[in-house]
Amino acid sequence: MGRTRFDDLNCGIARSLEVLGDWWTLLIIRDAFFGLRRFADFRQHLGISRNVLSQRLRHLTEHGILDRVDVGEHGERFEYQLTDKGEALLPILTTLREWGDEWVFGEGNEPLVMRERRSGDRLPPTLVRNQEGRLVTRREIRAEAGPGADASLRRVFGADRVRTEKVRERPRKA
Amino acid sequence: MGRTRFDDLNCGIARSLEVLGDWWTLLIIRDAFFGLRRFADFRQHLGISRNVLSQRLRHLTEHGILDRVDVGEHGERFEYQLTDKGEALLPILTTLREWGDEWVFGEGNEPLVMRERRSGDRLPPTLVRNQEGRLVTRREIRAEAGPGADASLRRVFGADRVRTEKVRERPRKA
Repeated sequence: MGRTRFDDLNCGIARSLEVLGDWWTLLIIRDAFFGLRRFADFRQHLGISRNVLSQRLRHLTEHGILDRVDVGEHGERFEYQLTDKGEALLPILTTLREWGDEWVFGEGNEPLVMRERRSGDRLPPTLVRNQEGRLVTRREIRAEAGPGADASLRRVFGADRVRTEKVRERPRKA
Repeated sequence: MGRTRFDDLNCGIARSLEVLGDWWTLLIIRDAFFGLRRFADFRQHLGISRNVLSQRLRHLTEHGILDRVDVGEHGERFEYQLTDKGEALLPILTTLREWGDEWVFGEGNEPLVMRERRSGDRLPPTLVRNQEGRLVTRREIRAEAGPGADASLRRVFGADRVRTEKVRERPRKA
């Protein structure tokens, strides 16, 4: 009981959720991806209170997703710019949008369509694939304790197998 | 102001977030992907109160992500099983995990590693690619008003261009 802070959890999904914070946070990030940078622009586009917006922007800056940059030539003027860690959220935003388009709006009702600028081609859906590029489903995937697994994860997801593999990788040293 | 319900928003990301509900909901879905099906198992694994779990499971059932199925041979025994709409969340869970692994835990500290069962290969990261399979960044993507765009989205993302393209696709009928 009482696992209310997700950063206690030894899980990449939970840790991402902890940093992304809440839905407002993710919609602020969405707007940053669309090119918004100024407090007033976020506020107007999202219809969000000054307090909530300030708090979320501070959270995103503290977690290194946005940089707060003084771009004023005469006096201070701040912009919020995506860092590399922020830009790396593109696959999350994309898969959220695609699922909403397919399962909530439905085909033919997509509010937005994404195209590659250069070619004008529509972007194909971002799906989970194997090394050869073939789509895989949940049942074709096996989760295995990784190098950062704690004791509880190792018990469930078999660190023994991981250890065996490591031994096999360097048989000459054994 | 006052856009506190995301289902008012003409946006696939916002609509996905509305259905996914909150972080607990997504962690319940994660556990369903790992094969959990019974109320008691979710409760034990997540360390979540009966009330919160009941409410979230009802939400997921109402939105067609889980089916509540009576699997009891003698008397009722319910399991929560992922629907197709639920299975389609795999790319969202995957991209969340991968971002957390890379930017929060860091390389070499991943709690879990995902492999294709058949080959044993580690799954490659799920990233946004163009039609040829090349990675694309935010700056290489153009958002365009889609068939379900409302007036506000059309104003910002140029429905005129969409209409022009449609005309061009059938010049002989014009």
